[in-house]
Amino acid sequence: MNWEQVFASRASRMKASEIRELLKLLAQPDIISFAGGIPDPKLFPASAFQDAYAEIFRDGAGEALQYSVSEGYLPLREWIAAHMATIGIPCTPDNIMITSGSQQALDYLGKMLLSPGDTALVDWPTYMGALGAFNAYEPNYDRLDPGTNRSAADYAETAAAAGGRVKFAYMSVDFANPTGRTMNRAARERVLDLADELDMAVIEDAAYQALRFDGEAIPPILALEIARKGDIEECRTLYCGSFSKSLAPGLRIGWVCGSQKAISQMVLIKQAGDLHTSTMNQAVIDRVARNVFDDHVAMLRRVYSERRDHMLAALERYMPEGVSWTSPEGGMFVWLTVPEHMDGAELLAKSLKTQRVAFVPGRAFYADGSQGNNLRLSFSLADEETIEEGIRRLGLLLAD
Amino acid sequence: MNWEQVFASRASRMKASEIRELLKLLAQPDIISFAGGIPDPKLFPASAFQDAYAEIFRDGAGEALQYSVSEGYLPLREWIAAHMATIGIPCTPDNIMITSGSQQALDYLGKMLLSPGDTALVDWPTYMGALGAFNAYEPNYDRLDPGTNRSAADYAETAAAAGGRVKFAYMSVDFANPTGRTMNRAARERVLDLADELDMAVIEDAAYQALRFDGEAIPPILALEIARKGDIEECRTLYCGSFSKSLAPGLRIGWVCGSQKAISQMVLIKQAGDLHTSTMNQAVIDRVARNVFDDHVAMLRRVYSERRDHMLAALERYMPEGVSWTSPEGGMFVWLTVPEHMDGAELLAKSLKTQRVAFVPGRAFYADGSQGNNLRLSFSLADEETIEEGIRRLGLLLAD
Repeated sequence: MNWEQVFASRASRMKASEIRELLKLLAQPDIISFAGGIPDPKLFPASAFQDAYAEIFRDGAGEALQYSVSEGYLPLREWIAAHMATIGIPCTPDNIMITSGSQQALDYLGKMLLSPGDTALVDWPTYMGALGAFNAYEPNYDRLDPGTNRSAADYAETAAAAGGRVKFAYMSVDFANPTGRTMNRAARERVLDLADELDMAVIEDAAYQALRFDGEAIPPILALEIARKGDIEECRTLYCGSFSKSLAPGLRIGWVCGSQKAISQMVLIKQAGDLHTSTMNQAVIDRVARNVFDDHVAMLRRVYSERRDHMLAALERYMPEGVSWTSPEGGMFVWLTVPEHMDGAELLAKSLKTQRVAFVPGRAFYADGSQGNNLRLSFSLADEETIEEGIRRLGLLLAD
Repeated sequence: MNWEQVFASRASRMKASEIRELLKLLAQPDIISFAGGIPDPKLFPASAFQDAYAEIFRDGAGEALQYSVSEGYLPLREWIAAHMATIGIPCTPDNIMITSGSQQALDYLGKMLLSPGDTALVDWPTYMGALGAFNAYEPNYDRLDPGTNRSAADYAETAAAAGGRVKFAYMSVDFANPTGRTMNRAARERVLDLADELDMAVIEDAAYQALRFDGEAIPPILALEIARKGDIEECRTLYCGSFSKSLAPGLRIGWVCGSQKAISQMVLIKQAGDLHTSTMNQAVIDRVARNVFDDHVAMLRRVYSERRDHMLAALERYMPEGVSWTSPEGGMFVWLTVPEHMDGAELLAKSLKTQRVAFVPGRAFYADGSQGNNLRLSFSLADEETIEEGIRRLGLLLAD
């Protein structure tokens, strides 16, 4: 059977990533890896999870093992609504839909908003997984750069020329994957201006928001928009949250928060997409969040901020001339810029043979694949000694 | 904000179901409901689940709480591959991808195969949730009726006239939702002939397959195709399985089985869609399946078959002239055909006021909404007494 012939046209946009394939090769014991942007499993609140399961089974677990509603488990949506209020977003459980991880929120938002040929505005670079999710709906990408004075009319004309209209701006706001950068308040406000002018949605990816180590918290875009418009029901921002970085990713629990008009459309998509997120997992996350969220996240901030400090200090010590990097105030990532003649993917291939240190080459984070001289390093998984040795090796690789 | 204006064109195909809204009204204590097609929570193997969680936490649960691969947890894929062999489908774990329930398999298969304007062949009536999943990809539907001699050329011409090509035939094969009917072997073979002639895929929804009470098991379509072609890698059938009816739906674990060529494309869709299904839930289902699957399913068959017997006997006793119904050999559903001048939705609205018995009106199961004089009854949730009383009331409603 010739499968290519029956695949939908979107299949051409959904190719296997060469980098992911390369990274598989790197999962060998003598490799020091800064590639995976994943939480340290030694830090999971395992006993809180164990207690939550025990509690659910004490009550028979009949409800947790059964089908449930597409919008999500009400007690968890209540906890999240209360949590959102603490970060400047007053809302009700009807403004929240639970997703199977925040990757699913991105997929469903693409599904809700994008027809082929429409334009999505994204950072240059941006989260690779967001591009992967949106690609399925065959959009064009244009560069969102709130630092320039590019006009709404210019964005609109570019989108029209590409065969659609601007449907949304997507951005990872705090300690972004891959750059570790945080969008400042002026840029957030500028995106809201632009959104009103273009009558588009705003997708705020807040996956790392709880992991701020230092510096002053900047209000979420949705909080700024509520401050402008007085009510979440008037807002165009859809906030995507996740428990993957704050509690554990293996249960796949995230959420979207926005106006009921948008959330009710998302619920239809969810119903058609997978009926609902695991009832058990929602019930468990609800209990764990109530019991340990604040204390646990405080501990994560402490541990990860030390690792960031070690990495930044090691970079200072070992990077040769011509290499620069970001100084994240939270999250899991540092973004290196190497001299323009170097290419991240070639460096990784070379590293496999020589220094045995792994990272993610930067090109795949650019929607147009235009820039190759970046490396993403994650400090979430490694101890001080490993960071020291890994960055030392990276220095040798880059100096070579 | 005018959300309609930013929604993708598919939004017009994803409307809230009036029936679902009506059914919400029916969730009142004095209503006898045959509406929900859901398993009886009293029959869940809760203690086997409890043991599985305990075992995982004894090992620290670090792996189960972490990210994992998009194709799914290998031990579970191994169990499923062995299980598939017992129903005539020899395959390897590379032929299996885990999904978040089999609804997600339908969504991702639609995403893999359908461009707007393509044609999907479906039963008339068919599973409403499959239509919901496929609708997001804006297909046309044509009636799959393997009992007629309609030629492949005729299907192909109809699809071309509608602006695309026939991409797949979808069918629920055993004790189908909503009809309770089982596709006979000749019809399965005819679909395979047609698939080869049309060079299309075949989506075999086997959600209820394990719940056969009596009669002789008919080989899955994928088994028949392997028998023809010698190797699953040559096959065009994609088999969708689920633990929702055999173990419990609340963990959302299903699978797709097919040629590696198709499965590897599904894995790309999964990666972009939600990264992976809950690691914990896969590890738990793996343990529960290994420990209790066969015995548990044998118990379910016994209990549900008694309920079916009660329902069929009560229908014999209470249905007025002019009403006919199916006699399922398994599953959860009986499908009633009432006189043509009656309409299921009107009957349900009337029942709300008078007899207080609930069912699902049949129209939503027809891709073209053409036929209104059917009711779907589920026998999975009710005891003998409730079935007796509910069917008695239904008889009064229909005789009125």
